[in-house]
Amino acid sequence: MELIEAIKTRRSIRTFLDTPIEKDVLQDLVEAGVWAPSGGNMQTWRYIIVTQPRQLDHMRNLSPGIFGQPKAIIAVCTDVVEAEKKGGQLGHTMALMDTSMAVQNILLAAHDKGLGSCVIASFHTSAVQKLLQLPSSIKPLLLIILGYPTGKPSAPKRKIEEVIWWETYSEREP
Amino acid sequence: MELIEAIKTRRSIRTFLDTPIEKDVLQDLVEAGVWAPSGGNMQTWRYIIVTQPRQLDHMRNLSPGIFGQPKAIIAVCTDVVEAEKKGGQLGHTMALMDTSMAVQNILLAAHDKGLGSCVIASFHTSAVQKLLQLPSSIKPLLLIILGYPTGKPSAPKRKIEEVIWWETYSEREP
Repeated sequence: MELIEAIKTRRSIRTFLDTPIEKDVLQDLVEAGVWAPSGGNMQTWRYIIVTQPRQLDHMRNLSPGIFGQPKAIIAVCTDVVEAEKKGGQLGHTMALMDTSMAVQNILLAAHDKGLGSCVIASFHTSAVQKLLQLPSSIKPLLLIILGYPTGKPSAPKRKIEEVIWWETYSEREP
Repeated sequence: MELIEAIKTRRSIRTFLDTPIEKDVLQDLVEAGVWAPSGGNMQTWRYIIVTQPRQLDHMRNLSPGIFGQPKAIIAVCTDVVEAEKKGGQLGHTMALMDTSMAVQNILLAAHDKGLGSCVIASFHTSAVQKLLQLPSSIKPLLLIILGYPTGKPSAPKRKIEEVIWWETYSEREP
C-alpha cells in the first residue's frame, strides 16, 4: 500500500474476526517498529507478543481499554534502567517518544497487511508486568491489540486548519 | 512510495541543501500528522511551521540538538490545559504519545516527498515558547527539522531478535 494511503485509511479497530494471525506477520510488525527513530540510538524498546488464548484472556482482564477479542497483543515496553542510564533525566520522556513512534509504524504496517489495530493506554501496569513476567526494569507503556477487522469504522473528523500556525502562534496564513 | 519501503529507508537527516520547501508540501506534512490516532480523540496537538530565515536562525540558537541549516522546522506542541481537561492525570502522557505518533507520520510523509528530517528533543522549551509567541497553555514537545538532504546516511544497526519475546519475558521463540 502507498504510504499516504496507509496513513489516511488506517482506523482504530476494536472488534475482530476469529481468524488467527501468522507469527511471521507479527514478527514483521515488530520489525517495522524498530525502524522508527530512537533518540541517541537508545533502542530501549522491548516487545512482548501475546498470542495464546489464555494469556490473551488474562491481558483483557487487566485492560479496561480492551473491548473486543483481539487475536494478538503486542505489549510495547521500555527498559527504564537503560533509558535512564543512556538518557539521564530526559531518558524516560525520550523512551516514551521512541516507543510511540515505533507504535505508529506498527499500526501502519498492520493496516498494510489487512490487520486492524488499536492502541490501548488504559491497563493495569503492574499486573501486566507480573503476567508477562517482566523484571522491574521493563515497564509496559502501550498495548497494541490486533486482529482481522470485522468492519471499517468511519474516520473521526480531523482538525487541520485549526491546529496549524505559521512562524508564530499569531499567524494563520503562510 | 510503498509503506514498508518508506519505514525502512527513512533516515535521520541533519544536513540540508539550500533548496526551499514549498508551503503546500509543509501543510501536507502536518495533514499526515493529524491522521495519527489520538487517545480519546483529544487532538490536543498544535503545529507551528517555521520557514522565515530569521525565525529559523533564532530557533537554531535555542536548540543545541540542531546542527545543519534546516529550511523549515515544525514545532509540534500540545495544549496542556486541554490535555488535562480531557485526559485528567493521564492527559499529559497521552498527549506526548499522540504527538509522537503524529511526528512519525510526518517523518514518513517527508521521506515520501524526498525531504530529509530529524526529530529534535533537545531545545530550550521556554525560550522557544516565547519566540513562537505561544501562550502558556501551548507547550512545544518536539521539533522536526526539514530540508532536502545533502546525502543518505547509512542506517544505525537495529536490534530485532534481541528485543522480541513471546507470551512472557522468558520465551524467545514463538
